[in-house]
Amino acid sequence: MNIEMIKAAATRLAPVVRRTPMLSSPFLDEMAGRRVLVKTENLQHTGSFKFRGGWSALSGMPEAQRAKGVFAYSSGNHAQGVAMAAAKFGVPAVILMPSDSPALKIENTKALGAEVVTYDRLRDSREELGARFARERGLTLVRPYDEPLVIAGQGTVGLEIVEQAKAEGVEKADVLVPCGGGGLTSGISITLEGTDLRARPCEPEGFDDAARSLASGKREVNAAQGGSICDAIVTNSPGEITFPIMLKNCGAGLVVSDDEAMQAVALAFQRLKIVLEPGGAVALAAALFRPEQITGDAVIVVATGGNVDADVFSRSLATI
Amino acid sequence: MNIEMIKAAATRLAPVVRRTPMLSSPFLDEMAGRRVLVKTENLQHTGSFKFRGGWSALSGMPEAQRAKGVFAYSSGNHAQGVAMAAAKFGVPAVILMPSDSPALKIENTKALGAEVVTYDRLRDSREELGARFARERGLTLVRPYDEPLVIAGQGTVGLEIVEQAKAEGVEKADVLVPCGGGGLTSGISITLEGTDLRARPCEPEGFDDAARSLASGKREVNAAQGGSICDAIVTNSPGEITFPIMLKNCGAGLVVSDDEAMQAVALAFQRLKIVLEPGGAVALAAALFRPEQITGDAVIVVATGGNVDADVFSRSLATI
Repeated sequence: MNIEMIKAAATRLAPVVRRTPMLSSPFLDEMAGRRVLVKTENLQHTGSFKFRGGWSALSGMPEAQRAKGVFAYSSGNHAQGVAMAAAKFGVPAVILMPSDSPALKIENTKALGAEVVTYDRLRDSREELGARFARERGLTLVRPYDEPLVIAGQGTVGLEIVEQAKAEGVEKADVLVPCGGGGLTSGISITLEGTDLRARPCEPEGFDDAARSLASGKREVNAAQGGSICDAIVTNSPGEITFPIMLKNCGAGLVVSDDEAMQAVALAFQRLKIVLEPGGAVALAAALFRPEQITGDAVIVVATGGNVDADVFSRSLATI
Repeated sequence: MNIEMIKAAATRLAPVVRRTPMLSSPFLDEMAGRRVLVKTENLQHTGSFKFRGGWSALSGMPEAQRAKGVFAYSSGNHAQGVAMAAAKFGVPAVILMPSDSPALKIENTKALGAEVVTYDRLRDSREELGARFARERGLTLVRPYDEPLVIAGQGTVGLEIVEQAKAEGVEKADVLVPCGGGGLTSGISITLEGTDLRARPCEPEGFDDAARSLASGKREVNAAQGGSICDAIVTNSPGEITFPIMLKNCGAGLVVSDDEAMQAVALAFQRLKIVLEPGGAVALAAALFRPEQITGDAVIVVATGGNVDADVFSRSLATI
């Protein structure tokens, strides 16, 4: 992985991607004790940054291979990103999703034209199921994070952050990134090399594999495999490809509680007028509730997704 | 009023205003039967387009006059826009607000540094109270819509719409605008002169003074003065300055029910990941629920504000 792959992905994405705005609020600044700049990838196509990786993968593979169709396993946002990219290319997409995914994510993925197959998150190995589907139906598997083209697509967020931070007069800051398998975090971290911006992964308590792995220097595994309200960013451990990149580039991880993530969802509603899912709000939560673990006059926060069911969102509003 | 005044306002606004994105969703396109492009002014500073008019007014008055401070009466969004503009200039702002304004709006206006004075919307004449405050305290009154500098500021939304629509390949379309006193609608309508885009005001049932006025050719008055969930855009009648501009430039008004506005709030949550207040969602509601009154392959919708209390927002989510 290198910066040239990310720039190439940016060129392929340019005609279709949304350049999402960087928002702020004096109320959030006061809470955090420093400027808080929020990169709003929840406003990206399909409601999360994952469209970038999906499009990068589809647009980066040979046309004959792409024409046969693609396959993905995902807790939802990656599925939607791949599904919309496939639909825009007019090729088939099959998506394998956990049966406990939010109803909205399953519904949206189907409506985007993909075939959805559900599995039991605790009982089944999605990797085995995925490999079998790919083998039997001749589709190309698009991995959610351990795939260079996908990392390159997610990394384009970082290219925009560097430009937008500069326009805001911010040249030195931590860049807090909600982290699952590390595709977005590692991709962004590459684009920050040579700047005074530094990527730091953010995770929910109990699923802080990235933070523990960065501390120990090797890929740690979570005890539990599900059950966090931050379902979008729950993974077993950092990726094989993503972790060495994160270990080289990233600052220490930040960890917040599910309740803090829910409060951040409510504060983003109230102060920024945007819809975040809990997993997409953990970096904002870290900026607001872990200020003592952050240095500098400003902090940059990536808001990664907004695909949240109405009942969870309404519950979050009751926290403030 | 003319386009040069709006371009001058755009120059004054350039260093501080957010160029809000134009969003869309294939789900909303399918519902409406045509492309729906949503200009997201809820993402503007203070959560509504009103910051534009506030900044335009403050930046457009002589420095000595501005230094003494400003005064405004408003159901909330205009108040916040004027308050933040005054705070950025470091001058005093006094805001007269209806006592039944959403708690969040009163709280935010105070937190932005303004002095807030409340009045009874049904019993008191805000115009008389406003004139007295201005006289006794030496502040300049910033009217919410019947003020050329304010209309010029709101009109800058239209300059951006023309550019963004062109970038989306849309050259001919109705531009649906939530309409209270008509500052935003009239300002936008001026920027659309000479294009194939056409401004049309959108209002809630029972408060359709603009639609009836455009139909009759003279300024009509609403029977009721309050009680709509769309509180942000409830006014007695179109303005003296704004109405002749609207009559010259605008297409027929569109009217939606409070329930349809609430459904549009929920759909904007679900499909666009943005927070709208009911009054700020009436144009989206018109696009989705009055398709037979609209012509063309695409429609442009202005989403004007997102300052909504959590309980109203949660109620809206229960409608879909």
